[in-house]
Amino acid sequence: MKKVLAINSGSSSFKYKLFAVPEEKVLAEGIADRVGIDGSSFEIKLANGEKHEERVAIPDQETAVNLLLKALKEYKVVEDLSEIAGVGHRIVAGGEDFTDSAIIDQEKLQKVYDLKEYAPLHNPAEGKGIEAFMKLLPDVPEVGVFDTSFHQTLDPEHYMYSIPYKYYEKYGVRKYGAHGTSVRYITGRAAEMLEHDAKDLKLIVCHLGSGASVTAVKNGKSYDTSMGFTPLAGVTMGTRSGDVDPSVLQYIMNKENLDINQMIDILNDQSGLLGISGISSDMRDLENNSDEKAVLARKIFVNHIRQYIGSYIVELKGADAIIFTAGIGEHDAGIREEIMKSFEFMGLKPDYEANKSNGEKFISKPDSAIKAMIIPTDEELMIERDVVRLAHLS
Amino acid sequence: MKKVLAINSGSSSFKYKLFAVPEEKVLAEGIADRVGIDGSSFEIKLANGEKHEERVAIPDQETAVNLLLKALKEYKVVEDLSEIAGVGHRIVAGGEDFTDSAIIDQEKLQKVYDLKEYAPLHNPAEGKGIEAFMKLLPDVPEVGVFDTSFHQTLDPEHYMYSIPYKYYEKYGVRKYGAHGTSVRYITGRAAEMLEHDAKDLKLIVCHLGSGASVTAVKNGKSYDTSMGFTPLAGVTMGTRSGDVDPSVLQYIMNKENLDINQMIDILNDQSGLLGISGISSDMRDLENNSDEKAVLARKIFVNHIRQYIGSYIVELKGADAIIFTAGIGEHDAGIREEIMKSFEFMGLKPDYEANKSNGEKFISKPDSAIKAMIIPTDEELMIERDVVRLAHLS
Repeated sequence: MKKVLAINSGSSSFKYKLFAVPEEKVLAEGIADRVGIDGSSFEIKLANGEKHEERVAIPDQETAVNLLLKALKEYKVVEDLSEIAGVGHRIVAGGEDFTDSAIIDQEKLQKVYDLKEYAPLHNPAEGKGIEAFMKLLPDVPEVGVFDTSFHQTLDPEHYMYSIPYKYYEKYGVRKYGAHGTSVRYITGRAAEMLEHDAKDLKLIVCHLGSGASVTAVKNGKSYDTSMGFTPLAGVTMGTRSGDVDPSVLQYIMNKENLDINQMIDILNDQSGLLGISGISSDMRDLENNSDEKAVLARKIFVNHIRQYIGSYIVELKGADAIIFTAGIGEHDAGIREEIMKSFEFMGLKPDYEANKSNGEKFISKPDSAIKAMIIPTDEELMIERDVVRLAHLS
Repeated sequence: MKKVLAINSGSSSFKYKLFAVPEEKVLAEGIADRVGIDGSSFEIKLANGEKHEERVAIPDQETAVNLLLKALKEYKVVEDLSEIAGVGHRIVAGGEDFTDSAIIDQEKLQKVYDLKEYAPLHNPAEGKGIEAFMKLLPDVPEVGVFDTSFHQTLDPEHYMYSIPYKYYEKYGVRKYGAHGTSVRYITGRAAEMLEHDAKDLKLIVCHLGSGASVTAVKNGKSYDTSMGFTPLAGVTMGTRSGDVDPSVLQYIMNKENLDINQMIDILNDQSGLLGISGISSDMRDLENNSDEKAVLARKIFVNHIRQYIGSYIVELKGADAIIFTAGIGEHDAGIREEIMKSFEFMGLKPDYEANKSNGEKFISKPDSAIKAMIIPTDEELMIERDVVRLAHLS
């Protein structure tokens, strides 16, 4: 039986899933956490529900990969490592080089490293992960799946900033977006649920997690998206500010004697829901919280999403469906309700009863002009499918 | 006959209009240009069309005011200066202190100066203008009319940024908006043309000049607006960037070794239409220009306006009218057409024939669900009216 590994790396961790091909069944999943940091651990969860976790030093990506391969054999998820027919890796920044997922050879690996300026914490760690697999499973194809690729279909009208053009030519400063793999999954699944070809649909995908974005999908392709040059832009997020008048940076930096790197750190790590509420970056801590600033943080979050959906419905000249996914989108009925309410005047008829619980479904009435849906996202499944497609495993 | 002067100051110039009260007839108007700079000049245009211009040194605001008063007598616009019953001044930044126009006494004048950090080029010059009138016409009331006042009705949900709350508490960092006096005029005039009380209307006001903003007006009050802490934010403008991913600043500053003040200068003075096109900040130079970047600049401009209108229609849950004003809004039929087209799917029926020419009118069909209108703005008239109201001249 062929198997495919999907690796979803952060800057100091990686989540993995092992799939059976072509069944797309998850055989094992888990995480190598705090790679290169004190207190690291390795976890594996088997298909039968069994879970094993160990505290173990993981100084680098290669150690993590070794632990993973060892665990797969130890718990008999694979008999032999040769069953692993391909490994897919989520990569945050693909710039303009990667308009699709790609088999990663030495040359492309170098490109992943070269793009590190667009994602300083992520691309180098992800590159190291790929290198480790290249060393330990030298005959297995490695596939890079880029968060930005799906958004490479944007027109210049949507991806160019209104700044001197030379900054695009010299440094590639433009909108790249993020969450592309998630939005691609949602697009396919939504088309199935709506029983239409994605080519005939106008979709608004709200990926609302600790990072949050709204994407307009037209004819199955990304048409516009709220994240920007980096994932800092767009809507309010857990700790990220989203859009801010650039003059605000100048004013605060001059007042507090900060440099731009300190300021951007504040906008990345201390802003968003955390910054407004002073309570938490986790929406679950603000839900049902009557604290004035917690309420305000939720209102601002909802309003940003509402604004982006509104602007994208106009860009698309209508919408067939608004789809909620990721942590908040899949689990916060209150946020979904507030957002849906804003579009009743356009013919969205929320099914408030259906909205009370979670899981993949329609949360609008059958005769709703714009459908509303919850679709739990599955980036790892997309990674697996790209490996199968590009490594010709089917 | 009572007369009221309306002063519309820039950082180094002031435009003025003298009105007859209560007829609201313009008796004279003109400009003192390049105050404090080489090559200054003074101009007066009389109601009969006569125009006088002189190159004259104008080292300070007091000299400019003296020239103005002298000219009013010389050209017999007034017999005696005592006919001037009030002077109104546009002031850019009113912060949270000024929720309405106000009679400016010494204490309030100090507040205008104290707010200079929000408008470093404007408030000090405007304060000096008021001081000059206080000295030369000591018995005449001075009225401040603030660009920001009309937007003081925004809810925290719309004016707070998603950054640490302390920056609002310590420094007043929030959205203040701009163009408030213009939007207030448009709101009143639109209500008259729509034959409804403004209290019953949902309006979207597109003030599109070299500075550009979109404002949502609900029940006669500003509900949300695209400019931010400063007039840099929001849509693409002549030389201003509007909204940009804050990370773009960090990236360019680190690459080009710029400090934040240099970077913000670039975003204020070298960006927008000029930055994208490399041709001009003046939309008239881009209209009917087939240069690829000129076309792109116009597309990006239209798209930003479209996005803001879309998001505000959703915030308002509908709109009675979209109104175009200021230089581009009043004179660029192509821009208006592109914007109107985007809302046909919502029931706006453009009257493309009416749109071909300019002037105050409807440019949508009579049965259009959302009306589209051109209304030339008149900030000076609003200033005159505020003087009459606050100095009890009627």
